[in-house]
Amino acid sequence: MPKKVDPHERRAQIARALHRVIAGRGLDEVSLRHVATEAGVSAGLVQHWFRTKDEMLRFALEVVAEQGQARLARRGAEIEHGTPREAVRALLVELLPLDEERRLEAHVALAFGARAAVSPEIARWVRDGMDQMRAFVADRLRAAGRVGDPEAAAVALTAMVDGLAAHVLAEQCTPEAAEAAFDDHLDTVLGL
Amino acid sequence: MPKKVDPHERRAQIARALHRVIAGRGLDEVSLRHVATEAGVSAGLVQHWFRTKDEMLRFALEVVAEQGQARLARRGAEIEHGTPREAVRALLVELLPLDEERRLEAHVALAFGARAAVSPEIARWVRDGMDQMRAFVADRLRAAGRVGDPEAAAVALTAMVDGLAAHVLAEQCTPEAAEAAFDDHLDTVLGL
Repeated sequence: MPKKVDPHERRAQIARALHRVIAGRGLDEVSLRHVATEAGVSAGLVQHWFRTKDEMLRFALEVVAEQGQARLARRGAEIEHGTPREAVRALLVELLPLDEERRLEAHVALAFGARAAVSPEIARWVRDGMDQMRAFVADRLRAAGRVGDPEAAAVALTAMVDGLAAHVLAEQCTPEAAEAAFDDHLDTVLGL
Repeated sequence: MPKKVDPHERRAQIARALHRVIAGRGLDEVSLRHVATEAGVSAGLVQHWFRTKDEMLRFALEVVAEQGQARLARRGAEIEHGTPREAVRALLVELLPLDEERRLEAHVALAFGARAAVSPEIARWVRDGMDQMRAFVADRLRAAGRVGDPEAAAVALTAMVDGLAAHVLAEQCTPEAAEAAFDDHLDTVLGL
């Protein structure tokens, strides 16, 4: 009897291959063929699981979000019961490309961020996550009580993390320098 | 006698058309044909002035840098003789998409930033400008004397500005909210 394939797992396998293609060539070079080769499956199989390229791209973005959520869930105590600084750091450090998994994810996020600038539909895909992240950060900044305008500081901080990730990927700074700049900023707005 | 065409001006006209194409469709959709249509010239003329697409893209990026430099030159006094906060603000606010010219430029910068993440050559195109900008910002932060590590704070601040620009273009925040977040951060690290 042939081994039963978990549909979600098979789609996730293809999504992870797509992440590697995006990180290597960029979003605009993504093709069914490249993704199939990278995943070690046939182009027909990719088409079986994703009817359109947009559907595949959207799922790739969802897998990135799921991976991040899974890591956050493992650090739940830190985020729920830690100091404001620990909580904000635990959340946002997930967006910095400091290891291979986050590096692939940051490539996907950057590629979609650039596409969101010219596609209102893609902009909508990312907006909910951004709103939730900013609300959480603003709440923790308010609790820490060191900045006058927690909402503005949350907009700045989430932008900084995205910018640092982009600068690391484009080799405008090292991962270590980005992490140091991030921590230095957290010291300033959240204390130790 | 036919009117003499200034070669630089003709190339710049095509580069500005390219900026509009990038802002409207994204870098990956750029084609000779789209650019020629947008510039109101023939595809042959575009090819006459730019032998390859890469040459055209590089020139488009240079025109963005030139436009920014020209605006900075007009604000020279503020940058050279202003307070550290005035100087840093005058420099970095040029990168925020707060009017139509800067909006087009920010689209170009974001598109190239995403490409730099997968192309070491494009990453090299932007590195010198980034290094100079960070050195200037770090110097002014040092003069203001409010942050412990001016280099780290400069890495964070330049990343924040790029991130804010990307968030405005992707409609993750309004231009006004981005500017307020930027000013709020300057208050924190540079004082008034």
